[in-house]
Amino acid sequence: MMYTSLKEECYEANMQLPKLGLVLFTFGNVSAVDRERAVFAIKPSGVPYEKLTADDIVICDYEGRVVEGQLRPSSDTKTHALLYKTWDTLGGISHTHSTHAVAWSQAGMDIPIFGTTHADHTHQDIPCAPALTDEMIQGDYEHETGHQIFNCFSEKGLVHTEMEMVLLQNHGPFTWGKSAEKAVYNSAVLEELARMAYLTLQINPNTPRIKDTLRLKHYERKHGKNAYYGQGC
Amino acid sequence: MMYTSLKEECYEANMQLPKLGLVLFTFGNVSAVDRERAVFAIKPSGVPYEKLTADDIVICDYEGRVVEGQLRPSSDTKTHALLYKTWDTLGGISHTHSTHAVAWSQAGMDIPIFGTTHADHTHQDIPCAPALTDEMIQGDYEHETGHQIFNCFSEKGLVHTEMEMVLLQNHGPFTWGKSAEKAVYNSAVLEELARMAYLTLQINPNTPRIKDTLRLKHYERKHGKNAYYGQGC
Amino acid sequence: MMYTSLKEECYEANMQLPKLGLVLFTFGNVSAVDRERAVFAIKPSGVPYEKLTADDIVICDYEGRVVEGQLRPSSDTKTHALLYKTWDTLGGISHTHSTHAVAWSQAGMDIPIFGTTHADHTHQDIPCAPALTDEMIQGDYEHETGHQIFNCFSEKGLVHTEMEMVLLQNHGPFTWGKSAEKAVYNSAVLEELARMAYLTLQINPNTPRIKDTLRLKHYERKHGKNAYYGQGC
Amino acid sequence: MMYTSLKEECYEANMQLPKLGLVLFTFGNVSAVDRERAVFAIKPSGVPYEKLTADDIVICDYEGRVVEGQLRPSSDTKTHALLYKTWDTLGGISHTHSTHAVAWSQAGMDIPIFGTTHADHTHQDIPCAPALTDEMIQGDYEHETGHQIFNCFSEKGLVHTEMEMVLLQNHGPFTWGKSAEKAVYNSAVLEELARMAYLTLQINPNTPRIKDTLRLKHYERKHGKNAYYGQGC
Repeated sequence: MMYTSLKEECYEANMQLPKLGLVLFTFGNVSAVDRERAVFAIKPSGVPYEKLTADDIVICDYEGRVVEGQLRPSSDTKTHALLYKTWDTLGGISHTHSTHAVAWSQAGMDIPIFGTTHADHTHQDIPCAPALTDEMIQGDYEHETGHQIFNCFSEKGLVHTEMEMVLLQNHGPFTWGKSAEKAVYNSAVLEELARMAYLTLQINPNTPRIKDTLRLKHYERKHGKNAYYGQGC
Repeated sequence: MMYTSLKEECYEANMQLPKLGLVLFTFGNVSAVDRERAVFAIKPSGVPYEKLTADDIVICDYEGRVVEGQLRPSSDTKTHALLYKTWDTLGGISHTHSTHAVAWSQAGMDIPIFGTTHADHTHQDIPCAPALTDEMIQGDYEHETGHQIFNCFSEKGLVHTEMEMVLLQNHGPFTWGKSAEKAVYNSAVLEELARMAYLTLQINPNTPRIKDTLRLKHYERKHGKNAYYGQGC
Repeated sequence: MMYTSLKEECYEANMQLPKLGLVLFTFGNVSAVDRERAVFAIKPSGVPYEKLTADDIVICDYEGRVVEGQLRPSSDTKTHALLYKTWDTLGGISHTHSTHAVAWSQAGMDIPIFGTTHADHTHQDIPCAPALTDEMIQGDYEHETGHQIFNCFSEKGLVHTEMEMVLLQNHGPFTWGKSAEKAVYNSAVLEELARMAYLTLQINPNTPRIKDTLRLKHYERKHGKNAYYGQGC
Repeated sequence: MMYTSLKEECYEANMQLPKLGLVLFTFGNVSAVDRERAVFAIKPSGVPYEKLTADDIVICDYEGRVVEGQLRPSSDTKTHALLYKTWDTLGGISHTHSTHAVAWSQAGMDIPIFGTTHADHTHQDIPCAPALTDEMIQGDYEHETGHQIFNCFSEKGLVHTEMEMVLLQNHGPFTWGKSAEKAVYNSAVLEELARMAYLTLQINPNTPRIKDTLRLKHYERKHGKNAYYGQGC
């Protein structure tokens, strides 16, 4: 019963996905990490949300090996594992196939920063990491997916504490945060930003990005050292 | 009372259609087959879902003749009959007029395989069978609809155990599976793939198909002999 | 208490509009006619659906004059009145500002017949009547709206028993049927056809209309003298 | 307990936003004014709607200073304050990031008046105020946002009692009315008008505006001195 509260956290965050309209059937998974024990809890593979219980949640280590649990963990477990191992500020990770985020992933394009809804959450375009090379796909695919995210962040000079969202080309979004709940929050925000950006370009295909001053103003008023959005807690 | 459990299975699967947002009013029908008795259960024609009961379900043979039931079966019964008769692995068939799948049908286009959401379910474009010839339409229309599906699969070299979905030009989708529940699951997946592909082309009209390695990787990890998605049951 | 059941019929049909997602706030109205008494029941103007009761329903004659009721009838009452007076097969009329039907109305275009979902209900394009002339607008506007519908049907050679839907340019849809319930059913069908046709043209801007044989086959199997869709009652 | 009923009005209006589908998480805020006491009640910053209570509502004066309340008011408080101070007919203000209204804001375009749904509420295009200058953004940003709305109304010759909606470029909509409830009503109407106008241009990119006679007829029948829409109360 060591991992009861970790499993609970993971279970609750997973159950937010269908409630927020972010998944059809089993197309998503959320994990939550316990940094002291160096393990994370993750949804079992292919189990429908309406049948899922906290007991079904699987505990894995940073290599993606099962530490506790009767069920097989998510097929994306090794991606979660590598992200936790490499980025030690992460408390939770969420992966969905939400409709508009997938559409941008399939289109193979970064989501341009057009407005303050976007800038309230991150101050740059949301990156779309290119599809993995054939070698990566035919090798340890889910592990390499994590590396492809790092490659993308490295090439674009992104910092994972400021950009908590990524698209994988031809696949879909991964998001993270200081908790599993925050990771799921970011999945919902990303889906809405993807939808807004799509509609914006339909209305005006030549829409420029938001101006720098406004972009930074909104990011800073919520995330800067003098932030005044929210209750400061 | 011979067919009680078959009618129940058919009823439950039909009631999933409105729950999944796949039908307006009576625009859909699901059937479930009993291979031992060589009959299938199907929704009666034109009965609203909110009034439907398991008792209303009609039992037919593989020629589409009513074996048991007070009501007239779905007007599409002969299409179901021919599919069951010809493809003996089928356990259930679902037909809807779901919005985005119908839009692709009306556009007369195959749905290109753009991403892993698609490749998780089938490794090829979802085919759009051409509209029936005038002779077929003026002949035994619903029976010929089945033949047109076979013609399409034959011309494109598709296998009905790997591709469980088809669009009929100017009409809409038929899906199938090893059970009625799986057939309905495929109807919902098809609608979502149709919506994602539509949005993808709106965002980037020149989107190429997913690369072969990634396409096959996702199909195989879920359906191949070394599949590791799900709980293996 | 003469009109109790007529008011009930009208009330129930009106309450279907928000349930079917066809109205925001008070943007719609449904009426039901009593041919023997030559009166119709209609929603009062500007009353929110959540506050509406059967007692609030207003009874009017074919000139649009109030026969019974404490409240002012819908501002569109004279349009309903003229349609009932002129087309004596009508049992109910529905007017909404449903999203996609309004979009086609604002675009000023007929909805082309692209598929069998459309042909199951009517065998022609859904007409968009041109905006009223300035004289008509500045005259007895709502009465003239009825005339503009007749003008449109006359010019296009449409028959109101076969085409139970119309768009008014820059305004929105009117639908009718043998009962108020059927009129509302037609409002929902029209909204779905409008959405499907819009998506079809987004996917393939050069989509041709459905072929004649298929168009007539679907219309006839549901509405022809040898119709076999539904339970024949 | 001076402000109990004002807080209740503000709370109830805020709770309409998620119910009407106008906000995700905390992306919106509504205020209600008490003209006699020269204060307004506003949502606290960053508090989720499902946790919000009437007690949490903050009371501010027309300079945006907190008069009563334990929590920090909305980060947009100074915009509300300046609008109340300058336009004394306002009873309530609503700010959302509703999807289609934000898309038009990001596109930087006025919403053209295409139909009677629009003309029933206002007789002109819904203006999009240009993004603030760098000086305004780096100065007292939320206060200057109010000034930018005034600048826009002044340049376009708009009157705030006839046009109760505005878009801020790259940001989103503000709406107002004689009460907080009416301000929220206007937020929902604006979102629907934004969606209809977007769809209209997708269907017909060359759609002209509604003709003047029809535009004014609909505005006048609902808002003119001889208005006959509604129950006259």
